[in-house]
Amino acid sequence: MNTIDRAGDEKRPDDGGRVGAQSATATFGADEPLALDSGVSLSPFTIAYTTYGTLNADKSNVVLICHALTLDQYAASAHPTTGKAGWWPHMVGPGQPIDTDRFFVICPNVIGGCMGTTGPKDIDPATGKPYGLDFPVITIGDMVRAQAMLLDRLGIGDLFCVVGGSMGGMQVLQWAAAYPGRVFAAIPIATAARHSAQNIAFHEVGRQAIMADPEWQQGAYLIEGTNPAKGLAVARMAAHITYLSETALHRKFGRNLQDRETVTYGFDADFQIESYLRHQGSTFVDRFDANSYLYLTRAMDYFDLADDYGGVLANAFRGTKARFCVVSFTSDWLFPTSDSRQTVHALNAVAANVSFVEIRTDKGHDAFLLDEPEMFATLRGFIDSAARTRGLGA
Amino acid sequence: MNTIDRAGDEKRPDDGGRVGAQSATATFGADEPLALDSGVSLSPFTIAYTTYGTLNADKSNVVLICHALTLDQYAASAHPTTGKAGWWPHMVGPGQPIDTDRFFVICPNVIGGCMGTTGPKDIDPATGKPYGLDFPVITIGDMVRAQAMLLDRLGIGDLFCVVGGSMGGMQVLQWAAAYPGRVFAAIPIATAARHSAQNIAFHEVGRQAIMADPEWQQGAYLIEGTNPAKGLAVARMAAHITYLSETALHRKFGRNLQDRETVTYGFDADFQIESYLRHQGSTFVDRFDANSYLYLTRAMDYFDLADDYGGVLANAFRGTKARFCVVSFTSDWLFPTSDSRQTVHALNAVAANVSFVEIRTDKGHDAFLLDEPEMFATLRGFIDSAARTRGLGA
Repeated sequence: MNTIDRAGDEKRPDDGGRVGAQSATATFGADEPLALDSGVSLSPFTIAYTTYGTLNADKSNVVLICHALTLDQYAASAHPTTGKAGWWPHMVGPGQPIDTDRFFVICPNVIGGCMGTTGPKDIDPATGKPYGLDFPVITIGDMVRAQAMLLDRLGIGDLFCVVGGSMGGMQVLQWAAAYPGRVFAAIPIATAARHSAQNIAFHEVGRQAIMADPEWQQGAYLIEGTNPAKGLAVARMAAHITYLSETALHRKFGRNLQDRETVTYGFDADFQIESYLRHQGSTFVDRFDANSYLYLTRAMDYFDLADDYGGVLANAFRGTKARFCVVSFTSDWLFPTSDSRQTVHALNAVAANVSFVEIRTDKGHDAFLLDEPEMFATLRGFIDSAARTRGLGA
Repeated sequence: MNTIDRAGDEKRPDDGGRVGAQSATATFGADEPLALDSGVSLSPFTIAYTTYGTLNADKSNVVLICHALTLDQYAASAHPTTGKAGWWPHMVGPGQPIDTDRFFVICPNVIGGCMGTTGPKDIDPATGKPYGLDFPVITIGDMVRAQAMLLDRLGIGDLFCVVGGSMGGMQVLQWAAAYPGRVFAAIPIATAARHSAQNIAFHEVGRQAIMADPEWQQGAYLIEGTNPAKGLAVARMAAHITYLSETALHRKFGRNLQDRETVTYGFDADFQIESYLRHQGSTFVDRFDANSYLYLTRAMDYFDLADDYGGVLANAFRGTKARFCVVSFTSDWLFPTSDSRQTVHALNAVAANVSFVEIRTDKGHDAFLLDEPEMFATLRGFIDSAARTRGLGA
């Protein structure tokens, strides 16, 4: 039953196929359950992932990309639903900081996700119906444990580098803590070692918006044939505001009106910002599962790395041999620089090898996904240096 | 038909009745319509208001309090639905900065509101049914115009002082601009002369949450006998986060669990912040009308005082004779100090008499409603000084 199922090559239209994208799935049967932090044993389960580039002979050139809340395994190749190019185009590809001509990049969809890896929209073997809320609650630790099983399956021992932003950055920190011997370099971007009260609050608003939608049907909408699209759209809209800075919103939209000269004295989208938010909400529901949104936000809320190590974050990193490049953005109010600084202090406390860069930008949390030359230059330098130390040719 | 309807005395339990609260309504008939900015003429309409203290012989001691989005005319007396004491207990009362032993305080419910002043939940005389979305969209200018009509009705010419926070502060600025000769002192707190893109965005999320609730029934829920409570609760939850600072949330709740030792691996309110937000949502719907929430948020979104004066905010204040005390809070990210500074710059440009105080606090936007001794000391000093200049005995 344990198979690796090559779904075939994907060609990225804008790079002449040089990125070498391959999408695949790995299924783990009853003999290889995923031991969840909740105590539940999940099996069978499948991990969907995409790889870019070529694994070298000694398997020393592996870069693991951990994706954020609503992203997926298509970091550098087209999304099958939207047709849009990969979500990290400036970071991953031939000649980019994560250079697919040199590195073998693995980007798996997280457990609990909705792009092929087992999650609440998949069939519960116990009932023959979609899990819905019967899917077990998962954690960042569970996501990483599943990824480690995938690497074992692929015969990959340790990682040259593990990198990710936001929820992806949480996974990076978890990797360093849970598998200290398997990580050579770690790049947690715009993230935190524990989710703040304000961030839990915003997630709770999103969950309540979904659960308030009668079409959510207590999570059984796939069985009932309904669609909690309105609730999910509201959740997305609320979250989207937190991804941007006030400055960016002001610069991009200000109080500009949408295709009209004056306000309409009504509740249409008079302002461009309203139209933009509505668009963000309505397109999101076409590509994301509402229950997945509940589960992944919950995993982030539960993340408190110190809590697993006697309440002292430094203990989480005590055994690490990794070098770290911690990145934050000045205008990120969702994961402010102070969050990254806590991680850096903990790493310093155990004399870990750590660089810390706060990038000056007004683009807010989303900056990690955008064209930020200073971030690229920083990461290119860090990755190249680590590669030289690792004996990977430039 | 034009009547002032004394609803009778209210006694505030905690002050022995010394605050002298009186609730009343004033109804304006077909001969006195409210000319709205939308071009619509609204009639009849009623303004519900509460007064505290005693009007002096020359009517020179009137303080007008303008309330914020979800507040009401019960600034210093018990709310009839919740039974809770007035919302500005430290500010208004005998011996308080707005001293009801010296001043005659008027606090009207805004037009479009839901506590007695005409709004979308009231009967549309054209149909005999509640207005719902047939209620005309109103503006901050309309709120102030209605208040001016109330003062005319009461035989009050000019105001010793007009004061308010947030949406109330918008009304204060509008008063100074629209009725420059009628305002002696103006205190706009935690507000802006125009609503920002981010604030419009948060309001839009709240409106979409309400409109996504099928029980909203295109605004006709009072006719249909439904109740969009879930949507309104989500709107309130999202908004409530913006009223607090991240620091305050962290200090008050952090990642504390709610009545449990460990997380439940489920979607209950594991964290205190979740429980608190749910409570905020569920209690709000008992005291507020969903359509009113749409209309009042819209009025704030539309507020752009400069826009009415050739795009130059200073022009709005060119005729003012008022002295201003502009107040902001360091941790207010909804109406940050930069918003207040824009108002101050405009006032300075026309050589207005203006004090500007940024209060250091970590309580966020809601600080204007809380026990902030520095704010009280500032306003006590400003009001006492203005009263002396006005010839009102201390």
